[in-house]
Amino acid sequence: MVLLSGGLDSATVLAMAQEKGYECHCLTVAYGQRHAVEIDAARKLAAALGAVEHKVLRLDLRDIGGSALTDDAISVPKGGLQDGIPATYVPARNTLFLALALGYAEVIGARDLFIGVNAVDYSGYPDCRPEFVAAFETLANLATKAGVEGARFQIHAPLVSMTKAEIIRQGLRLGVDYGLTTSCYDPVDGDPCGQCDSCLIRSAAFAEVGVPDPVCDRSEPRGTIANEAPSEPREST
Amino acid sequence: MVLLSGGLDSATVLAMAQEKGYECHCLTVAYGQRHAVEIDAARKLAAALGAVEHKVLRLDLRDIGGSALTDDAISVPKGGLQDGIPATYVPARNTLFLALALGYAEVIGARDLFIGVNAVDYSGYPDCRPEFVAAFETLANLATKAGVEGARFQIHAPLVSMTKAEIIRQGLRLGVDYGLTTSCYDPVDGDPCGQCDSCLIRSAAFAEVGVPDPVCDRSEPRGTIANEAPSEPREST
Repeated sequence: MVLLSGGLDSATVLAMAQEKGYECHCLTVAYGQRHAVEIDAARKLAAALGAVEHKVLRLDLRDIGGSALTDDAISVPKGGLQDGIPATYVPARNTLFLALALGYAEVIGARDLFIGVNAVDYSGYPDCRPEFVAAFETLANLATKAGVEGARFQIHAPLVSMTKAEIIRQGLRLGVDYGLTTSCYDPVDGDPCGQCDSCLIRSAAFAEVGVPDPVCDRSEPRGTIANEAPSEPREST
Repeated sequence: MVLLSGGLDSATVLAMAQEKGYECHCLTVAYGQRHAVEIDAARKLAAALGAVEHKVLRLDLRDIGGSALTDDAISVPKGGLQDGIPATYVPARNTLFLALALGYAEVIGARDLFIGVNAVDYSGYPDCRPEFVAAFETLANLATKAGVEGARFQIHAPLVSMTKAEIIRQGLRLGVDYGLTTSCYDPVDGDPCGQCDSCLIRSAAFAEVGVPDPVCDRSEPRGTIANEAPSEPREST
């Protein structure tokens, strides 16, 4: 069970899980996010990377609000990372996403949950840290019938200690087409703003790796990088 | 922040939280439950017990299924409690409900979450046990900006060690109108089936307390018991 947002990180996690031989069921949450364009990106990535299933669940977090991503009255910060947890933090988001993944995993008999959280090149969101992931794993095994009956849920967060550049290198090695991903919190007509934290972290990482970002660099045709990668996305069996 | 299902337990929890002086915001989840009649019951209870707010969030767990309460192809067990966790178990339900309550609590500045789980007269659901509640509290304080910044979320589960009869006595003392609550998993035209686990646990408890159940005993007018209770529901201020 792979939580797939349509961004760079979760796409890489999906490719890593596929490489390990997992039969991947992907879950995307349509939560009323400002950057809803990522849902369509997730669909394309699931297909391109050979997931056996891609499920989109709806949960409108605009009814809760409290984040620049779920309340249009709150602006997405632009122009550089600031200290502290930014306004793009969505209260309880990863707790909710993992809970949805857990419920669906239990129903289909999956025991391995993958999430692309990262606590190195990130915005300081508390629910991206390894201690959060560990606490959720403990909870998952207490909360469920499967857990009580002896199955063991594992929460895999393979990117948690990687730099963004390392993540991109890993994905390129696995043939991820980053031209299909989207990271921007505040896209205009589907194009990245280039100024939000997520755009800035992404572009710095591509620069560090030394390859153009197929999304941001519009002079390059999409998919260029993937075509240079050593292998094509695996088809799941 | 009180999770209010419309059932007997959460109604009692709301009355207990009100008695302690909390300004109660109630949250009900419309999750595609078979017994959707409980959502309307929750609305009436929130008003009757003086909550300052009642919010209904939609999250369709029929997209996940796997439970007699969210999949019409799975029957609600009738005729007596069996060993093991029954088919009415909903995968990850209380994890999801608490996560929604946590997110909304963080947005409105609430730090005390109330849930009416009970691990004595219950169906053996793993997410009704004290160890689940404790694990969620740990998670809540790792998952959130408020938790990281020093606020402390507390998950209150005041019924967890009470018998159902003790819960009813407590509610009657606080003036809960159990005629407004609904417990049945499989109501017919809004009326309780009298045969599901939830109906059986409820009717045994009312019998133990020695008062008629205003919902099941149709010969008694609704609200009879509440009118005999020592105090009227408090209005919140």
